[in-house]
Amino acid sequence: MSEAPFAQVTIVGLGLLGGSIGHAVQAFLPGVTVVGYDADPAVREQARALGLAHRIADEAAQAAEGSDLVVFCVPVGAMGAAARAIAPGLSMGALVSDVGSSKETVAAALAEALPGHHIIPAHPVAGTERSGPDAGFATLFRNRWCIITPPVDADPALTARLLAFWEALGARVETMDADHHDKVLAVTSHLPHLIAYTIVGTASDLEQVTQSEVIKYSAGGFRDFTRIAASDPTMWRDVFLSNKEAVLEMLQRFTEDLTELQKAIRKGDGEVLFDHFTRTRAIRRGIIEMGQDDARPDFGRSDHNGTKSAEEE
Amino acid sequence: MSEAPFAQVTIVGLGLLGGSIGHAVQAFLPGVTVVGYDADPAVREQARALGLAHRIADEAAQAAEGSDLVVFCVPVGAMGAAARAIAPGLSMGALVSDVGSSKETVAAALAEALPGHHIIPAHPVAGTERSGPDAGFATLFRNRWCIITPPVDADPALTARLLAFWEALGARVETMDADHHDKVLAVTSHLPHLIAYTIVGTASDLEQVTQSEVIKYSAGGFRDFTRIAASDPTMWRDVFLSNKEAVLEMLQRFTEDLTELQKAIRKGDGEVLFDHFTRTRAIRRGIIEMGQDDARPDFGRSDHNGTKSAEEE
Repeated sequence: MSEAPFAQVTIVGLGLLGGSIGHAVQAFLPGVTVVGYDADPAVREQARALGLAHRIADEAAQAAEGSDLVVFCVPVGAMGAAARAIAPGLSMGALVSDVGSSKETVAAALAEALPGHHIIPAHPVAGTERSGPDAGFATLFRNRWCIITPPVDADPALTARLLAFWEALGARVETMDADHHDKVLAVTSHLPHLIAYTIVGTASDLEQVTQSEVIKYSAGGFRDFTRIAASDPTMWRDVFLSNKEAVLEMLQRFTEDLTELQKAIRKGDGEVLFDHFTRTRAIRRGIIEMGQDDARPDFGRSDHNGTKSAEEE
Repeated sequence: MSEAPFAQVTIVGLGLLGGSIGHAVQAFLPGVTVVGYDADPAVREQARALGLAHRIADEAAQAAEGSDLVVFCVPVGAMGAAARAIAPGLSMGALVSDVGSSKETVAAALAEALPGHHIIPAHPVAGTERSGPDAGFATLFRNRWCIITPPVDADPALTARLLAFWEALGARVETMDADHHDKVLAVTSHLPHLIAYTIVGTASDLEQVTQSEVIKYSAGGFRDFTRIAASDPTMWRDVFLSNKEAVLEMLQRFTEDLTELQKAIRKGDGEVLFDHFTRTRAIRRGIIEMGQDDARPDFGRSDHNGTKSAEEE
């Protein structure tokens, strides 16, 4: 589009996501003013030094003044409190959005804190295992999906502007119900994180195998789990508490499937195992074809000398 | 070392591991002759075209003739049959080894098939999600650990030569009991693969969430699991059947830990979740410090334009 969808954007919460939006708006929407705010004075100082925004507000009540888009980038459990703090400076015409990983509870918390305001939640499915203001970068959202969950009474023009905003940041945008979003993400993101956190914990608590052995021989598969189990603990605590029902439902199904494979191992039933392991290859191919992962073996990991294994052959 | 530890090496089974050994010996032990064999004629033909060995034998009984090291690189359930096929051409002085992912059952299968021979099992903890002769490359073992599990009556001179062989291929070598190996690998490799296979299966069987949604939004964590769930089904079926006891024990512990987190989610106990998620970060740091994984965020995955996210910032 020729014109920027918003004139001034306020980002509340300057961690990995908030910081990346700050970089991305400055890089890809050059006419737009970015105002940043974080409840933590040390983060505000760091954000200033990193240039995450044109201006960093020191008072919550002033952060939203003059902005036509306010994006909350705090842990989902902190959305309500952040919105209440921002409310006094928020104009009635401004669009309120967020980047939270669960959408039904966040929509409810924002609606309760900001009655009468325009609220359209969103969730860019992007991130790394790093957290904090210095973890952000402008291209985090490029080629990633952003899911917008407009309430039934949302203004279509505002939904279109939010969509244009995320597309300008490089994302591909999809809209769906908050309820459906929460089910989809429970399986593609929340359950994988829970499983990864669990197995890394299990491995570090064994008596027969030392932690240094676990670390040493992690290339056998374990290390892939440690990456996502290094994600921000506060953010993930809040995700599980706020998307409880969908997570517990997916966990139930996972446990049933795991029990079936466990039984096959105990009984020595190789056919059940082989059939299951063959089916799961197709999903990987789909992900590579959709451009949602690196096709190089081992993610193209660097070897000891900093060269790529896949490129050396 | 100035002299090669073996003069002629036979590789039985020319998939990812066997093919990589073929490339690596030719690259890093230039004086050593490599003979290859695979039970599948199509694989033998492909191996010839790829130059995986100096010579590809067409008969199992001829493959080991004149070799002072024979390395079995077949699925662990096929070790006994492969050894029996090779036996007629195997000299009594040759060292027999393998690359299997479980060691107690493999040691027993080789000993039964080759009575009176020198057998020292080994396991290079290296691999990618690819399989087949064209998946191999010379640097697969560089900076990876290779675990040697010499039986109590092994000739120390032969153990030393096998150690030198793996070091020449770039690996760091450690020796331990087969029993301990199987426990360590159950947690660092076998359990992670079982969990990954399970969750990818669970995700593809849901009614409320389509497979295309799972693929689309996989960047939220799920895609990391699909990489290892794309590993060779025959190899992994055999691993679970051959290391049954240790896998079931680790699975039991994992399930207990998962049940605890499930309960915390159900009760809304954020403190239990937060404490657990904080502990698991330390293991990731250990793995990065040990040089066993790529420290760049997101494994330095390429973005849409083929550039690295971590390098752009």
